Amino acid sequence: MYTINKSIVLVLAIILSFITSCNTEKNKPIQSEDIQEIVDPLPSWNDVTSKQNIIAFVSDVTNKDSENFIPVKDRISTFDNDGNLWSEQPAYFQLFFAMDRVKALANEHPEWKNKQPFKAVLENDMKTLLQQGEHGISTLVVESHAGMSTEAFETIVQDWVKTAKHPTKGVGFDKLVYQPMLELLDYLRANDFQTYIVSGGGVDFMRAFVTEIYGIPKEKIIGSRLKTEYKYNDGDPKIMRLAEFDFIDDKEGKPININTIIGKKPVFASGNSDGDLPMLQYAASNNYKSFMLYVHHTDAEREWAYDRESHIGKLDKGLDQALKDGWTVIDMKNDWKVIYPFEK
Amino acid sequence: MYTINKSIVLVLAIILSFITSCNTEKNKPIQSEDIQEIVDPLPSWNDVTSKQNIIAFVSDVTNKDSENFIPVKDRISTFDNDGNLWSEQPAYFQLFFAMDRVKALANEHPEWKNKQPFKAVLENDMKTLLQQGEHGISTLVVESHAGMSTEAFETIVQDWVKTAKHPTKGVGFDKLVYQPMLELLDYLRANDFQTYIVSGGGVDFMRAFVTEIYGIPKEKIIGSRLKTEYKYNDGDPKIMRLAEFDFIDDKEGKPININTIIGKKPVFASGNSDGDLPMLQYAASNNYKSFMLYVHHTDAEREWAYDRESHIGKLDKGLDQALKDGWTVIDMKNDWKVIYPFEK
Repeated sequence: MYTINKSIVLVLAIILSFITSCNTEKNKPIQSEDIQEIVDPLPSWNDVTSKQNIIAFVSDVTNKDSENFIPVKDRISTFDNDGNLWSEQPAYFQLFFAMDRVKALANEHPEWKNKQPFKAVLENDMKTLLQQGEHGISTLVVESHAGMSTEAFETIVQDWVKTAKHPTKGVGFDKLVYQPMLELLDYLRANDFQTYIVSGGGVDFMRAFVTEIYGIPKEKIIGSRLKTEYKYNDGDPKIMRLAEFDFIDDKEGKPININTIIGKKPVFASGNSDGDLPMLQYAASNNYKSFMLYVHHTDAEREWAYDRESHIGKLDKGLDQALKDGWTVIDMKNDWKVIYPFEK
Repeated sequence: MYTINKSIVLVLAIILSFITSCNTEKNKPIQSEDIQEIVDPLPSWNDVTSKQNIIAFVSDVTNKDSENFIPVKDRISTFDNDGNLWSEQPAYFQLFFAMDRVKALANEHPEWKNKQPFKAVLENDMKTLLQQGEHGISTLVVESHAGMSTEAFETIVQDWVKTAKHPTKGVGFDKLVYQPMLELLDYLRANDFQTYIVSGGGVDFMRAFVTEIYGIPKEKIIGSRLKTEYKYNDGDPKIMRLAEFDFIDDKEGKPININTIIGKKPVFASGNSDGDLPMLQYAASNNYKSFMLYVHHTDAEREWAYDRESHIGKLDKGLDQALKDGWTVIDMKNDWKVIYPFEK
């Protein structure tokens, strides 16, 4: 009997262990709330006001019992790219691409040797190039990005990214993204926000390679664009890029493009310059509770420090409104443990 | 011993039943493939070639072991709206909205009494109105849809839909959608396709009310649009609608807009007129296996019958190419058990 009893005890123990392993605790899929209780969603952020504000907002608007609850369909977040998700100094990364394109095309354009802004590019004269102002830079972008199909342009950008290096950091441009912002994008998506890029940069330049970096698919990347035309091309249709801007996705262009393409007002908008101010104002006017975020470049050592007087990413009126209206401002130097993923 | 043995047998039986109930069969979430084996995904379709082609395509490209497998991120489907997802006779539904707007605004515009195309609208003279051609209809749309904010326009459309009735069918315009196409949209989404509308109709007109009908959110509705401008409006920003077209999303405009807004070539494109032909050609050129679908209006009794000679939804060159290239053509009369949901 003893032996048998022992067997029964063993059998019961097995059943018990089976019941335990089979109950809802173990079979229930792990919920994001469970993870967030344990895992810090923003590990590269110091425990600062900006981080606390973000988490408080997301927790509030995703809580069904909150008066500020936002239905999933309306959780639209929009992010500027240059200076907000990746660096933009000493010039927009796309300008370096345009310069490399001009050099690659120079043989076909002997007239460029004596014509600005091309002359400055061919002579590596960055100072003169930047003196050409926005018109000069636009000319450079238009001339170097047009006259080919969308597929051909995508391949050129992808080839460029593989080898191009940032002039002072010495790493690929695609490495100079902000680790804390990658975490923020992930955190928002884990809470059923759609994350869009809304950038003054060229939409096709970004679409060629940033999807993997940010986890943002092409259809959620919005930017400036050239005019295009459709060519039937004997059954092999092409979208051809023309040497003329169709839309500049900056300043007032941002809310206009958000309305055109998304058709919904963001509940979360993030930028770093006065060019983003209309987008943040637009989000601030949402009937839902909304979150306005500015990245303030305060870290001259690890990144760059610039704001009100900068020729790139000037943040002046935006900073005033952020301070006046209590928007969240990231102090890059003090708020972020690391800037780039390779520093982790 | 016997009793105890019996107990052990019982205990073992319990364990066995527990193991069975706890194994992967029962705990596995029900997969869409399991359901599709049992439930017909397109119940309002007769068992015809068009239905068989659609199911064969979807089964093939979603099968991981198929050489034609398409990753989820690239499962982009694009649908024309007028005449493809809902009826478009005796005129585009948006034209009836524009006419009602002109009547509502007539007091503010006494000059319209003697000016075409407004005169024809105010006199309910449909024949003269349609003789004004595309320019006349564009004028009507521009004048009746502009001069207000996007929010104000949305409210006007939503109020109109509540009471407006189709002139011959006698039901609300939102009731005249095609039940078989609703099932197709659901079927594609169940197989992880993104479903987009790409219509010549006004994007803001559609966005005001078709989301619930089709299960397509605003950000996946693409259409023609007016120019807009951003007004800061003392902290209550508005996107104002201007009386000028920004983009006509028809013919070559469709692939251009698909490239601009989605940035990916469709693998499934559906339309009903020559205006959709460039979109279908664009899809046909996809490196992935793709599916081109035409709705052919052959049902004079339940809907309307028209194609090569029609002034609305003319299907001539498109039909030739569909027949030549083996695209799928829906014969509305013979392929669909019901046309509208209320006939079910």
